[in-house]
Amino acid sequence: MSTQNWEKRIAYLGPEASFTYLATKGLFPNDWLMPQASIPECIEAVAEGRVELAVVPLENALEGSVPLTVDYLFHEADLYVVGEVTSKIQQHLMVHPAQAENWQSIEAVYSHPHALAQCHKYLFYRFSGVPLHQYSSTAAAAKLVADTPERCIAAIANSAAAEKYGLTIVENNIHDFHFNHTRFFVLSKDNVRLSKVDSETTKTTFMVTLPTDVSGALHQVLSVFAWRKLNLSKIESRPLKTGLGDYFFIVDVLADEEETMMKGAVEELHALGCTVKSLGTYYSYTTPE
Amino acid sequence: MSTQNWEKRIAYLGPEASFTYLATKGLFPNDWLMPQASIPECIEAVAEGRVELAVVPLENALEGSVPLTVDYLFHEADLYVVGEVTSKIQQHLMVHPAQAENWQSIEAVYSHPHALAQCHKYLFYRFSGVPLHQYSSTAAAAKLVADTPERCIAAIANSAAAEKYGLTIVENNIHDFHFNHTRFFVLSKDNVRLSKVDSETTKTTFMVTLPTDVSGALHQVLSVFAWRKLNLSKIESRPLKTGLGDYFFIVDVLADEEETMMKGAVEELHALGCTVKSLGTYYSYTTPE
Repeated sequence: MSTQNWEKRIAYLGPEASFTYLATKGLFPNDWLMPQASIPECIEAVAEGRVELAVVPLENALEGSVPLTVDYLFHEADLYVVGEVTSKIQQHLMVHPAQAENWQSIEAVYSHPHALAQCHKYLFYRFSGVPLHQYSSTAAAAKLVADTPERCIAAIANSAAAEKYGLTIVENNIHDFHFNHTRFFVLSKDNVRLSKVDSETTKTTFMVTLPTDVSGALHQVLSVFAWRKLNLSKIESRPLKTGLGDYFFIVDVLADEEETMMKGAVEELHALGCTVKSLGTYYSYTTPE
Repeated sequence: MSTQNWEKRIAYLGPEASFTYLATKGLFPNDWLMPQASIPECIEAVAEGRVELAVVPLENALEGSVPLTVDYLFHEADLYVVGEVTSKIQQHLMVHPAQAENWQSIEAVYSHPHALAQCHKYLFYRFSGVPLHQYSSTAAAAKLVADTPERCIAAIANSAAAEKYGLTIVENNIHDFHFNHTRFFVLSKDNVRLSKVDSETTKTTFMVTLPTDVSGALHQVLSVFAWRKLNLSKIESRPLKTGLGDYFFIVDVLADEEETMMKGAVEELHALGCTVKSLGTYYSYTTPE
């Protein structure tokens, strides 16, 4: 699966072998992938023109939205979504090969907070009392385990991280829920679209701020879409950072913003006093398993 | 401000000097406060009857909901909200007194991921390149700094943590946004209410699962409340953990569930095919600054 027409520099949330790397590599197998240390750095790399595109995690089926991505796109950056990728998340328990025989008595588990949460029940029943340490990424946790052969510690990470850092997977698929996917946004400074090849879904993402009280206004916003039979695949609230109870809404509509009904809907949202920021229309891709 | 009528055992998200401790102590100054290591442990302590009440963080004005609290209440526990407390969050930079003169050249900063995010800009401009380490709580980060006098490291935590662990606050109020509050739930096995004294707001929290597609159904749910002039102070989506795009909604209504209009609304939600879980009606309190 490749959607590229020219060779591009693409920032992604690193390090190499992160889940974002896997999603990015699937979509852009022949481009120049540049790992970044944080989501804001990915977004700033594309905003400042150092790369053509950036790939960042947006939402996980279990953990919900990645607040930093949503908030940075709303408060800090003027970027467009030019595509989205959905990848299955499979978490494995891995140790240094030197510790592979002792793995039943590991002293500590390292991983990203989301990965630890995704394996909460497994860890609770299997390794109750073993300290869990939050790390900046699953791949960074794998690297720590690779760099610490003398300690019997484990990382929770993906198979690419085990391969890259030469770790031994001692238990496969330790995540508690099976339907676990992460959705990634491909971001650009320009309101373009990746190729429609390999995609069956067209989506538009709006960020909507309501005029006054949430109750009636949100109902009006949904009415604008409902009577036009514009389907929402998602609506989510995020704090405006002006006080408890002040929210903006991220709305994904399964339609092209160039359609007549969509143009009418956006005009009416403005007329209702809403502030509407469009992140653009884009196609959805899925990483093959 | 005290709302108690009898002496109670109260679990809270520890350790002592956590923000949850401050909120709990403000509401229950004379009760037996029992720190727990995690949100699930707080919830299980009250579900299993080891304590009468538990206090857990629900939502922060900047970071949004605390997923573990919302998800545990939805998926795992059958508890009622008997009160809510809102507290102002003030973050300070603190070091060991032995390092107070060297604080400008700190090697690392430790804190809870939310506190690090709340001070993102301060840290970016003031300590760019200094590694940030995620810790289980702000108080635990303060304790680490207190236990490591030989290293020039800092914690971000509240003033109670500085006091308890004998640290020196080197910069006050380093959080990026001023309107930063956290909302805590007081949970019980029984559908009771804390005293109305010191409270001016009555709220009911519902967790609603929609029957089919999100678009039209959510619009219907909001119509049920809107025509009755029942004001929502919050609506938020959380993943159902059955797949990307499947959500349940947390709805806070500014009304008592015993009111006629509320009973009618809940009946109609059921008739629409929604699954409705009420967490009960409760009063809101504010921790004095």
